[in-house]
Amino acid sequence: MARTDAGKAAAQPRRDGTEALVRVAVLGCGNVGGALVSLLLSDSEAIAARSGVRLELVGVAVGDPSKPRPGVPAALITGDAKGLVSDPRVDVVVELIGGVDPARGLVESALAAGKPVVTANKELLATHGAALAQAAASAGLDLLYEAAVAGAIPLIRPLRESLAGERIRRVMGIVNGTTNYILTTMSEEGVSYTQALAEAQRLGLAERDPSADVDGHDAAAKAAILAALAFRCDVVADDVPREGIATVAPVDISFAARLGYVVKLLAVVERTEGSVGEGTDAGVPEISVRVHPAMLPRTHPLASVRGAFNAVFIEGDNAGELMLYGLGAGGRPTASAVLGDIIDAAHHLRTGSPARFVAPVRPRIRPTDDLRCAWYLNIDVVDRPGVLAVVARLFGDNGVSIRSMEQVGLDDEARLIFVTHVAREGDVQRTLSGLRGLDVVDHVGGVLRVMGDEEGT
Amino acid sequence: MARTDAGKAAAQPRRDGTEALVRVAVLGCGNVGGALVSLLLSDSEAIAARSGVRLELVGVAVGDPSKPRPGVPAALITGDAKGLVSDPRVDVVVELIGGVDPARGLVESALAAGKPVVTANKELLATHGAALAQAAASAGLDLLYEAAVAGAIPLIRPLRESLAGERIRRVMGIVNGTTNYILTTMSEEGVSYTQALAEAQRLGLAERDPSADVDGHDAAAKAAILAALAFRCDVVADDVPREGIATVAPVDISFAARLGYVVKLLAVVERTEGSVGEGTDAGVPEISVRVHPAMLPRTHPLASVRGAFNAVFIEGDNAGELMLYGLGAGGRPTASAVLGDIIDAAHHLRTGSPARFVAPVRPRIRPTDDLRCAWYLNIDVVDRPGVLAVVARLFGDNGVSIRSMEQVGLDDEARLIFVTHVAREGDVQRTLSGLRGLDVVDHVGGVLRVMGDEEGT
Repeated sequence: MARTDAGKAAAQPRRDGTEALVRVAVLGCGNVGGALVSLLLSDSEAIAARSGVRLELVGVAVGDPSKPRPGVPAALITGDAKGLVSDPRVDVVVELIGGVDPARGLVESALAAGKPVVTANKELLATHGAALAQAAASAGLDLLYEAAVAGAIPLIRPLRESLAGERIRRVMGIVNGTTNYILTTMSEEGVSYTQALAEAQRLGLAERDPSADVDGHDAAAKAAILAALAFRCDVVADDVPREGIATVAPVDISFAARLGYVVKLLAVVERTEGSVGEGTDAGVPEISVRVHPAMLPRTHPLASVRGAFNAVFIEGDNAGELMLYGLGAGGRPTASAVLGDIIDAAHHLRTGSPARFVAPVRPRIRPTDDLRCAWYLNIDVVDRPGVLAVVARLFGDNGVSIRSMEQVGLDDEARLIFVTHVAREGDVQRTLSGLRGLDVVDHVGGVLRVMGDEEGT
Repeated sequence: MARTDAGKAAAQPRRDGTEALVRVAVLGCGNVGGALVSLLLSDSEAIAARSGVRLELVGVAVGDPSKPRPGVPAALITGDAKGLVSDPRVDVVVELIGGVDPARGLVESALAAGKPVVTANKELLATHGAALAQAAASAGLDLLYEAAVAGAIPLIRPLRESLAGERIRRVMGIVNGTTNYILTTMSEEGVSYTQALAEAQRLGLAERDPSADVDGHDAAAKAAILAALAFRCDVVADDVPREGIATVAPVDISFAARLGYVVKLLAVVERTEGSVGEGTDAGVPEISVRVHPAMLPRTHPLASVRGAFNAVFIEGDNAGELMLYGLGAGGRPTASAVLGDIIDAAHHLRTGSPARFVAPVRPRIRPTDDLRCAWYLNIDVVDRPGVLAVVARLFGDNGVSIRSMEQVGLDDEARLIFVTHVAREGDVQRTLSGLRGLDVVDHVGGVLRVMGDEEGT
């Protein structure tokens, strides 16, 4: 694929020292697209002064061009996204439609026409990211997507460039604001999952059908993108095992608090033991990538990430612990990240050097059963002598060692709150099956991974 | 200044698809330099796999070449820094000597010889940063300094690139790990400043002469660099008014805690009201830049930054609140940031496009007296009727409005704890002078700014 000359002249730097003019097409005018269009229309002077690039909006492709869009000149609106992408006036294409189709075809058309692409489309990247990145690199063009994970939080340049020399061990992210709002509300107001979800829906933080958020689909797509960024691994959303937050009970959140922990939904990407190195010449890397709720110590930097905020916590061999925090969604924050990418693409058009590209490799993904961490288990048992011995033996027989146990009376039952030492997940799952089969066990309640604490997991 | 051809051949990308070889000279082999040299010697394969750039260490300039340096081949060591900089084998110069001289001359020589420079030298940047950046830009070369502020925390690319489209309002940083360790220890262990300082010295976190840290000199240099990054303003360390932490008393830390606040030493850079825009064609920007302790609400993201960690909190018109958190010092974390810059410089040598440069402007700096925030004041008065009225009148006469007052008995005295509404600093200082002149006032104790709370300051 060769870069065409369409639009090239406009992207050249001006020799008189003034800013280069770069012409932008926006596909999609929803929450983020609308905010971006408004910024491009109103803030162009200031952006030019700050960045040295003058951005001109030349078209906005929408699904329904007849819908009134206050503040957007009618002449800019079109229903023909494909036509706008191929318009020779367009230097940079910004894809904010979301979903795989027709976004994928439009991005491919833009790259084929020699135009860099900026997108915030996590679904597209988490399914076809590696192929699109390869297509962009082959064409010598940018495919930038800072806004696709964790909205306004600068993530891509830190992971790809600042940490280029760093051997990253693990990335744990609170990357879904809806679930973090729900868990924060449950924790701070003592309400149920259902009540917290209703409140999030009332505030517009959760959809009427909340499953994309609460079941971890959204976080899984972002986990796949994080794997690409942190480990240059080609992982798709379907590779990511996920557990949502619908089963997190208030009682487990309060026990967690008593034990000094908070419950967060995490996207986790980590280099696992079997890893022999990175890159093509050093063997195939092995990683774990997953989404699940976990208990984190109250003093962990991620623990203080409240409400709809997102954060990504990075652990590196040399850099130590890093965290990047901010708003993960919302029109203007996401549009701000998109704008940073557009300016980058514009600069790269001027210099002819797109952002660096290291081809992703398809990693081995460590099976969930082989992962190791500590676990919290909340088990209701019959309250009679000897029961604890039976339960404890089952843990021991499965190779799971108990770090702490607390017994809480409950009428004629007892509730046992266990925290294990670091254990193999397969062993813990076998223990749980065994517990469910015991006569003396009435109910296995909350089961949560414990991460980021003194046991070093 | 024109780029010479020295070293150019080596920096070219290889057409066979393997990594380019880039040859690195390191000036200074202390804590950071030693860690970097060790990484370059031991981790070169993995770095090449991750980044696509093969780095070769060709020399290390030190003050005393006779000193044994385990792990560093003697052939690499030289006492002749100037000779190493001009060695035609060297593609990239890394300056880790620190201080203004001889670092400044060596950086200038490197740029004059057409070699990009990576430095972690905050003193140099906070005194001659604008001139050096201009020299680098004129020569079409990189001058990169990610490690100069907040060690391993990715700060420069987020501020310069990710947020290129963002109108930043304010940056508040915990950028000195020593003082944050001392304040955290005072807060969590209830010890005095002197005890916490002694503990920091015992742990190697504070120098024997701690004044560079505790008096805010180090933070002031970093504030100047933050001003350049966030607002493209040419500010030097001497422009930065600073207050240190030696006068912060345990009693004020506990009152702060009772009121729901923590005390942190902050480097603050903000766009102030008088600002008319950014850049050369939009008038001269007005900013405030300063270093002082401040009370932050316990729920503020910076409040949970404990011990020797650093964090930079950024507020933007569109992006909202962002925070970047990590280790601000230490050999390996800082070396990790330096390594990211070296890889960047190496890539830019290959593409011929250095990092972007927007010339900094000399801003107006808002006088301290014209700044506005809320204040905490701790005043010991004679305990007799009518005293509060006298004190309160003085506040009112100076235009300072009181948000809350708490009286605490103290034998035959009373301690009054005031928190004001947002007030002009000049008015607060006049109030303080007035209070010190009142017969009924025995002692004006802790005086702290209150930031980041519901009054929006």
